[in-house]
Amino acid sequence: MKELTLSASQIAEIVGGEIRGDASRTINRVEGIRHAGANDLSFVSNKRYQKQLEASPAGVVLVCKELADTDTATRTLVVCGNVDLAFSKIVAVFAEEPPKFKAGVHPSAVVDPSVKLGADVSIGANAVIEEGAEIGDRTVIGAGCYIGHQVKIGADTLLYPNVTVMYRCRIGNKTIIHPGVVIGGDGFGFYPTPQGLAKVPQTGFVQIDDDVEIGANTTIDRARFGRTWIKSNAKIDNLVMVAHNAIIGESCIMVGQSAVAGSAELGRGVVLGGRAGINGHTVIGDGVQVAGTSNVQKSLPAGAVALGTPAESQHDYMWRFTTPSRLERLTKKFEALQAEVEELKKK
Amino acid sequence: MKELTLSASQIAEIVGGEIRGDASRTINRVEGIRHAGANDLSFVSNKRYQKQLEASPAGVVLVCKELADTDTATRTLVVCGNVDLAFSKIVAVFAEEPPKFKAGVHPSAVVDPSVKLGADVSIGANAVIEEGAEIGDRTVIGAGCYIGHQVKIGADTLLYPNVTVMYRCRIGNKTIIHPGVVIGGDGFGFYPTPQGLAKVPQTGFVQIDDDVEIGANTTIDRARFGRTWIKSNAKIDNLVMVAHNAIIGESCIMVGQSAVAGSAELGRGVVLGGRAGINGHTVIGDGVQVAGTSNVQKSLPAGAVALGTPAESQHDYMWRFTTPSRLERLTKKFEALQAEVEELKKK
Amino acid sequence: MKELTLSASQIAEIVGGEIRGDASRTINRVEGIRHAGANDLSFVSNKRYQKQLEASPAGVVLVCKELADTDTATRTLVVCGNVDLAFSKIVAVFAEEPPKFKAGVHPSAVVDPSVKLGADVSIGANAVIEEGAEIGDRTVIGAGCYIGHQVKIGADTLLYPNVTVMYRCRIGNKTIIHPGVVIGGDGFGFYPTPQGLAKVPQTGFVQIDDDVEIGANTTIDRARFGRTWIKSNAKIDNLVMVAHNAIIGESCIMVGQSAVAGSAELGRGVVLGGRAGINGHTVIGDGVQVAGTSNVQKSLPAGAVALGTPAESQHDYMWRFTTPSRLERLTKKFEALQAEVEELKKK
Repeated sequence: MKELTLSASQIAEIVGGEIRGDASRTINRVEGIRHAGANDLSFVSNKRYQKQLEASPAGVVLVCKELADTDTATRTLVVCGNVDLAFSKIVAVFAEEPPKFKAGVHPSAVVDPSVKLGADVSIGANAVIEEGAEIGDRTVIGAGCYIGHQVKIGADTLLYPNVTVMYRCRIGNKTIIHPGVVIGGDGFGFYPTPQGLAKVPQTGFVQIDDDVEIGANTTIDRARFGRTWIKSNAKIDNLVMVAHNAIIGESCIMVGQSAVAGSAELGRGVVLGGRAGINGHTVIGDGVQVAGTSNVQKSLPAGAVALGTPAESQHDYMWRFTTPSRLERLTKKFEALQAEVEELKKK
Repeated sequence: MKELTLSASQIAEIVGGEIRGDASRTINRVEGIRHAGANDLSFVSNKRYQKQLEASPAGVVLVCKELADTDTATRTLVVCGNVDLAFSKIVAVFAEEPPKFKAGVHPSAVVDPSVKLGADVSIGANAVIEEGAEIGDRTVIGAGCYIGHQVKIGADTLLYPNVTVMYRCRIGNKTIIHPGVVIGGDGFGFYPTPQGLAKVPQTGFVQIDDDVEIGANTTIDRARFGRTWIKSNAKIDNLVMVAHNAIIGESCIMVGQSAVAGSAELGRGVVLGGRAGINGHTVIGDGVQVAGTSNVQKSLPAGAVALGTPAESQHDYMWRFTTPSRLERLTKKFEALQAEVEELKKK
Repeated sequence: MKELTLSASQIAEIVGGEIRGDASRTINRVEGIRHAGANDLSFVSNKRYQKQLEASPAGVVLVCKELADTDTATRTLVVCGNVDLAFSKIVAVFAEEPPKFKAGVHPSAVVDPSVKLGADVSIGANAVIEEGAEIGDRTVIGAGCYIGHQVKIGADTLLYPNVTVMYRCRIGNKTIIHPGVVIGGDGFGFYPTPQGLAKVPQTGFVQIDDDVEIGANTTIDRARFGRTWIKSNAKIDNLVMVAHNAIIGESCIMVGQSAVAGSAELGRGVVLGGRAGINGHTVIGDGVQVAGTSNVQKSLPAGAVALGTPAESQHDYMWRFTTPSRLERLTKKFEALQAEVEELKKK
């Protein structure tokens, strides 16, 4: 973080918030509410964390409207419409710039003479770019990356170090790919023969559109034929698996360790929670939300919410989840009835 | 894909199928049934997808016998015994060859002088091969791979770029390893001491036999002693974890994100669905099938089918799964009985 | 393994155990109990594996006290207080030394002139170290590693090949990081805008303290602000995900494929079983134990044991798990009562 001192009034001005308490109080750091001290700015965006707020010695706190009446003796509140966004603005003020990757080809990089490099590309140390690849303007290929034969990468895209993109895959513009990602490993397909499992050739490629982000060590497999397709603005977290011929729609969100099996198709704006999974050959409608760790085993219409394994609607999931309680209630009623019958028998 | 035009009759000849409809209709691409157009060949291997077939404008479709009577006004059907295999044959006709990795040691590779290289090996740019390693005939070590001390790799094996094989591990012939795989990281073992957790030395190695395939970013840990062993023809998908001293039997299939814990042993032909897990120190018999996301917590006899967490037989799993319905039925019967008792009491 | 012959009496001396049977019997290998032969030393640390012991032709077996009376006609027993530790001692006797990484900077490494290298550091072939980084005494940076701008790494730390550490992250002393690990990829944060998902800048860093171990292909994300923090002596297995701003306490254990979501805090000595997950913004007390594959969705007090998804106490988990059996018992009682009512009605 930059060394910097901001007053509550300066903060309120930056975020467009409303001050409660001493406007002249200053902070010189940002910190989460559980760890913030008197010289820190923190934030609480949900009434659920009210107790943490009340217990915190944080000097200045960005809060939602529901928390606007919290005591201001030891802290100044800045009440915001969108606390999260407001906090991001202050974080940005304190943020040091990430390092720039210099334009040019590092002398240790191994770039085939046939490769077409756009203007101001940056090719890092020990990167390898194979025959027939094309890299767009201002794109960064990090140190140690491997870019296979005939790969096409657009402009203003950032591949961090040690990314692997196999032959003939295509990546769009303004896309960010984190270290360890593997694009275009073979899809997983075998068939039994008397001599053992034989490989189904994976002859397609991976297409990644614009403004996509892919987290560290995620893998996106080459299609059996045609393409595995990550559409524009999709955001994929770490250690995610996208299998062959899957389609990930525009602005989908796939949280860490989630997975989409072969030939499944996600519509626009689908959200998969952490470690959620989608079975193969399903069609998942626009805006579907799948809870973390849930596994969707069949197609879902647009707007569906799915929980559990196999994933069900919220209603069905809760019905299943509350079964033990319902059984307990029934058991009590049963015992009462049993007693009544006992009474009747005595008569 | 290659630019190519095939008629339905040519296709029928290639796959040994039977034509229904216009034999002269031509296609110039292959595509999944949901996305295929009039100039595309597609395939439907299961009656389940009949509606998709009927709705599809695909020009030529490989179908199973159960779908042989589908309307042929706008499409030609080619009826096949094994649709999947037939489709693979046509895919192969359209497939461009994957790039070849040239024999020879790239000048940027760092190969210790003691390393024994077989005939026609290919060592990619910036690969590193340590002292005492041995690489068999025609084997490819991709760009950026790291091959540790005394590693032995057989003939006709293909390591794609950025694979890491740590010291003393052994890999057989005709094995394929995808980018980002780590073979021979330490097994995970610690024991508590007054000063904190202390490391259990992992002194063994990993042995991978012939005709194995290992998917991107999978990790196979070094044994505590002796070996972690992947037997021949086993097929392992992406992001899979095989822990120390585990044994994966011949022709096992481990789908993406599955895992086998320490010292577990899988027999021949075991299938683990996506994200399935096997607890440590278990013995899993030949041909066991574990459903995706299930977790097996104890040993299983040959041929068992296991579902759920903890994994149970199909019968027990269904019994558990249908508990809410049975409770509902019992509740209704209970209410009826309650009413009867009420009647009796009135009398 | 070293070629070596040890007698049961030598073994008993090394491990401080007590001999049952022929003290002169010799072994020249170590092996698991299911695979050990007459010339092998093996071990059985739990009465649960008694049958495997009785069926084993192993020549010498380290056993716990409960197994001290097993037949010694074909084997010699060495009874130990801590069998596991005893076995590790013998494994160590047979273990070949792991290869040493020589001090010095490999000529193919690309080290920025501004980098500060401690005494006797080892920088492997094709490693890349960026501007402003600092590497402590005797630390090893493996071949192909990428060390970003201003990264600080302490003394006696071992980074195996192909590790990626992004800018400004900090790693302590005596820490071990296995291949394919990514430290400091961006945390996963986006917010919706009319133009699609926009990136929340991830401006913090990752701090890893002393004596930590991190398994192959694990990813630890850069904080949104401040730090993601792995405290000293924490042990993390392969393919684990630690999200932005999470805190992993001293001596925590995270088994393979487990995950901790954003801003969650683990106390000291927390144990996450394989593929266990912790939701974001939770506080997990000291010594909490989470069973494998379980998902913790809310904060837990110190010492809690949590199972299932969503994770519950052992009591609640068993109550839920045994619901089908309780339903069956209730159903039988219900049928009996139904018969009684039928009898009453007849009267």
